[in-house]
Amino acid sequence: MIVVMKPEATKEQIRHAVERVQEMGLKAILLEGTNRNVIAVIGDKRETAQEILAAIPGVERAVPILAPYKIASLEVKRERTTIPLGSGVIGGRRVAVIAGPCSVESRAQLLEVAHAVKEAGALGLRGGAFKPRTNPYSFQGLGRTGLEYLAEAREATGLAVVTEVLSPEQVELVAEFTDVLQVGARNMQNFHLLREVGKVQKPVLLKRGFAATLEEFLLAAEYILTQGNAHVVLCERGIRTFEDHTRNTLSLSMVPTLNERSHLPVAVDPSQGTGKSSLVIPMSRAAVAVGADALLIEVHPDPERALTDGAQSINIPQFQLLMKALRPIAQAIGREL
Amino acid sequence: MIVVMKPEATKEQIRHAVERVQEMGLKAILLEGTNRNVIAVIGDKRETAQEILAAIPGVERAVPILAPYKIASLEVKRERTTIPLGSGVIGGRRVAVIAGPCSVESRAQLLEVAHAVKEAGALGLRGGAFKPRTNPYSFQGLGRTGLEYLAEAREATGLAVVTEVLSPEQVELVAEFTDVLQVGARNMQNFHLLREVGKVQKPVLLKRGFAATLEEFLLAAEYILTQGNAHVVLCERGIRTFEDHTRNTLSLSMVPTLNERSHLPVAVDPSQGTGKSSLVIPMSRAAVAVGADALLIEVHPDPERALTDGAQSINIPQFQLLMKALRPIAQAIGREL
Amino acid sequence: MIVVMKPEATKEQIRHAVERVQEMGLKAILLEGTNRNVIAVIGDKRETAQEILAAIPGVERAVPILAPYKIASLEVKRERTTIPLGSGVIGGRRVAVIAGPCSVESRAQLLEVAHAVKEAGALGLRGGAFKPRTNPYSFQGLGRTGLEYLAEAREATGLAVVTEVLSPEQVELVAEFTDVLQVGARNMQNFHLLREVGKVQKPVLLKRGFAATLEEFLLAAEYILTQGNAHVVLCERGIRTFEDHTRNTLSLSMVPTLNERSHLPVAVDPSQGTGKSSLVIPMSRAAVAVGADALLIEVHPDPERALTDGAQSINIPQFQLLMKALRPIAQAIGREL
Amino acid sequence: MIVVMKPEATKEQIRHAVERVQEMGLKAILLEGTNRNVIAVIGDKRETAQEILAAIPGVERAVPILAPYKIASLEVKRERTTIPLGSGVIGGRRVAVIAGPCSVESRAQLLEVAHAVKEAGALGLRGGAFKPRTNPYSFQGLGRTGLEYLAEAREATGLAVVTEVLSPEQVELVAEFTDVLQVGARNMQNFHLLREVGKVQKPVLLKRGFAATLEEFLLAAEYILTQGNAHVVLCERGIRTFEDHTRNTLSLSMVPTLNERSHLPVAVDPSQGTGKSSLVIPMSRAAVAVGADALLIEVHPDPERALTDGAQSINIPQFQLLMKALRPIAQAIGREL
Repeated sequence: MIVVMKPEATKEQIRHAVERVQEMGLKAILLEGTNRNVIAVIGDKRETAQEILAAIPGVERAVPILAPYKIASLEVKRERTTIPLGSGVIGGRRVAVIAGPCSVESRAQLLEVAHAVKEAGALGLRGGAFKPRTNPYSFQGLGRTGLEYLAEAREATGLAVVTEVLSPEQVELVAEFTDVLQVGARNMQNFHLLREVGKVQKPVLLKRGFAATLEEFLLAAEYILTQGNAHVVLCERGIRTFEDHTRNTLSLSMVPTLNERSHLPVAVDPSQGTGKSSLVIPMSRAAVAVGADALLIEVHPDPERALTDGAQSINIPQFQLLMKALRPIAQAIGREL
Repeated sequence: MIVVMKPEATKEQIRHAVERVQEMGLKAILLEGTNRNVIAVIGDKRETAQEILAAIPGVERAVPILAPYKIASLEVKRERTTIPLGSGVIGGRRVAVIAGPCSVESRAQLLEVAHAVKEAGALGLRGGAFKPRTNPYSFQGLGRTGLEYLAEAREATGLAVVTEVLSPEQVELVAEFTDVLQVGARNMQNFHLLREVGKVQKPVLLKRGFAATLEEFLLAAEYILTQGNAHVVLCERGIRTFEDHTRNTLSLSMVPTLNERSHLPVAVDPSQGTGKSSLVIPMSRAAVAVGADALLIEVHPDPERALTDGAQSINIPQFQLLMKALRPIAQAIGREL
Repeated sequence: MIVVMKPEATKEQIRHAVERVQEMGLKAILLEGTNRNVIAVIGDKRETAQEILAAIPGVERAVPILAPYKIASLEVKRERTTIPLGSGVIGGRRVAVIAGPCSVESRAQLLEVAHAVKEAGALGLRGGAFKPRTNPYSFQGLGRTGLEYLAEAREATGLAVVTEVLSPEQVELVAEFTDVLQVGARNMQNFHLLREVGKVQKPVLLKRGFAATLEEFLLAAEYILTQGNAHVVLCERGIRTFEDHTRNTLSLSMVPTLNERSHLPVAVDPSQGTGKSSLVIPMSRAAVAVGADALLIEVHPDPERALTDGAQSINIPQFQLLMKALRPIAQAIGREL
Repeated sequence: MIVVMKPEATKEQIRHAVERVQEMGLKAILLEGTNRNVIAVIGDKRETAQEILAAIPGVERAVPILAPYKIASLEVKRERTTIPLGSGVIGGRRVAVIAGPCSVESRAQLLEVAHAVKEAGALGLRGGAFKPRTNPYSFQGLGRTGLEYLAEAREATGLAVVTEVLSPEQVELVAEFTDVLQVGARNMQNFHLLREVGKVQKPVLLKRGFAATLEEFLLAAEYILTQGNAHVVLCERGIRTFEDHTRNTLSLSMVPTLNERSHLPVAVDPSQGTGKSSLVIPMSRAAVAVGADALLIEVHPDPERALTDGAQSINIPQFQLLMKALRPIAQAIGREL
């Protein structure tokens, strides 16, 4: 930690700040600059919150040197984590495609999509049984029945199931049916939920909050990891910006940056990340090219009759085209699909 | 709803879109423009999701005319809502000040602050017993013990207690001790939590998510209102932007805009909204001047030793100055404090 | 400057980085931390760009300690700057109100507004003769004729004239007619224009770019100051965020923060800053309460027939109400208006 | 245009709004909804500003149906525009790579880079002679001498030269030496400069402003096109968001969206768009995969000694790797490089 004193800080304030650092059991080195005084804080307490030092009188700001996450960090674990997904893994040479409807709407709808995406090469089946909806009057999902259809579709196709869990008390139920627990963007900082999914022995796909920084994203993963669940997939799904030509701004630079900082595999959701079906294929190409380990794709047999997110869902022939388009790109970067 | 067709939409697509609107039991009026065709959709179904119409082939976009919230809307209820707070109300002539430490740290700390803010003119006592922390290694609050201290401080001072609830299963416990349930910014779209606090007969102070639009904010309130709890206070607490001179950008235009759209009272949190103690007094002055019904202020007897948020907490003498500074501003706009 | 080395930086890289710092004539202090190595760089060269140090192999990032602006800084000049404006100043006890139409549309329109705002207590007259328009097909202003009308309105009323200059080659012409040269938000980083207005002996009202940080804003002022023109007013006019209930997000925390960093006076533009006439009065109240030295208000005799920005213009009776509302707020903070 | 009346709009206000539309020579169709009244405005005047209708009393908002740009629009010109670049074009089957140093620093530096990038397969040479710098104390470029070195490098290598023009009065000078005039992000709404480069018979590479929407970007292009210069390349270079792991957020969804709306070719700048050399290769792969027609890459023989932007520049061996990595991706989408 580097503590920058205000230009007008008094000698007394500087002395006091040095003492406060020492009180915390840390080493303080005072650097007297030409215009400013700075205290370098040395020690092993990563958890020494920046906020504590920033509140000392005469301190302008405290600049952390170490990242606040540990278990998620590449400094702590150098080998890349791979996560089992049905017959394959997320984080291996093969780019894992997880496809399916935004919401499970009926048994027939789900089975139709599941067979089609399986045949086209998907490894996982996505589909929401419990839906987080901005509007209380919107369709909220089939609930437990939706989970049963998902399990049936897994039996029928061999696809691994990925579905969202909305609340701590749902974790047990959802974990019974699914292969991967999805934590949605709106819940990325629902810390009770993060702790609960951390206690389950099922992989977690953690979506980035739509206004979360990289550090907050990795700290959310850290909540899960600290509970003993080592299987977390990080999923970039677009952030909120001033842009209005898409529903979100898909920030693909997160993929290589997360790879520089963390050993966890990284997925991309181009459907949520753009909100427009016409952009799903080009942005999926980009996501594979940038190095994503997995893609989440919304596929619906008849998007204009989808109960949720029709505008960003592609239909089955479009999904077949997508898979065909992605294969040579995966090969171009030494992967497969 | 206005459905804008793509410039290249075929006659067949336009005919199909009109039929789809009629299938939903709505009236469609086709407007043939010089360059574009537009379908005006008339009917009473506010819940007819924009997303359904936007997914019809040949449709460029669907523009809603009506706001998606109802009960929260000034169109539905014209009289301003007032919400009981201890010996006063939120939403009346008097600007309600709710002050206290970020976290309840000890019995002594809490009582000291409670007495001091009471004496300076506060109506409510804030203080976190359960803390949502970005970092899993940070102090997470005293929990139930913190709630007990809050209840004791209420007994001792007559201040109404405002404290945060983090999870649906905590609602019952927290409601037992507090006067107002606070839903934090990170939980503004935790829909399970919103529904649970909607079932309780205690007022809810709902903080704006740090990337929530006005519409999303009012829809979150609507979740609570639809469960039967009519007592919701909306609280602006700053949004995430590119600005780096403050922790958040406090968006004061929310106050008059919420007043144009909704009958619910509006609070402002200048402590969270700036992250810097030196800005709390000037931004509080601005919040009162713009028309806030209530203020949330973080006050700590010794901010540099606060376990959380010391940098944005003011001390007791500063709180006294704050109250003194706000009174003439309240009077200048025909209110009191 | 603090140079943070990557965790995997080699001893050789660290040695090399220290040498590079020394080559620049600066002192390097190596701090060996538990997990990271950090080099504290001490010396007087503020201009030693962060970017140069950040490019050294093995360096993770370079954190500047000193602000990059000098002349604009409160560290360099402690006394507050006041700037002459007609019969008063900007930066004194009196809050200066500068009002007038978005665009000068005709002699009659301008004189009507000028007389009305003068009578209501304005010190300055604003009005665009050259208009920066997003759309090339929109009205671009009356040009030189507009300047002549502004000069005539000054003669008739005694108001000081504030008008925008768009391009370096216009500076001489506009300076001939105006009292204050306005540099618009879109030109805040038009460095040629900044240099030209820095060479003129007329005050400059510099609007914050709509995506400029505080530091970039002060560096833009520094461009003007380095040319010898000491009379710069900084104007907050709203930033671009994800918010959609206003045209911009007016960031009032800029006012006290600029006052903490710089001696230059600060104005606020609530018309541009909200884009809605109904918000101009409440946000003006807030701007005065937070400590603004001046306000820019768009006033039009008949806003619905304004050629530009009608939706954010208030009419003359509304301006009279505004002035009446602001006086007690100014008094409440020890100022007048 | 769709004019949405406020819920409380009176009959008189509605009648008045209809008349105002008709006064403008447009057809008004009043749609009486269940809760709201809406006026559909039909006619050919694209320039009828939304702002004029929005200012009519009783109007809540005016929603434009047509895009405000014309010449840039795919509705007006269906064939894709290609733009000559040295021995090739931008907008053809071959992805054009334009590489070179951020700033021209010396004759030797420029020639070394030029020969190297030519050999590796670049079509164009980038390099700044006039530099827009946020900080007035930073290196501002070699000026005319830099232009001369660029011209010499073109002679020596056959590469087309792309360099920035900062100010209207520089256009003639820069056009004399360069093949393509670059307008930088900070100048995207410098309308005088846009008009001047529109009068020259040299292609213009227009960078997106870092807070510009898609519509504002195309309107900036329209300024150039209306002056008679049909050769505009649109360049995505990252936007300003809350993200702090990169200098900007590179928004790759702009590429396919621009292709849906406009016939102009689209370039991407991954160096500016990330600010980090380690991200340039992965984000370049993504840019080619998403469909960019051209890439701008900052290459420096010794990035740590670059006078500007060293942290985002790659060196010559890295550029060779980049080109090698991009070729199979270009092939995977049916293009070459």
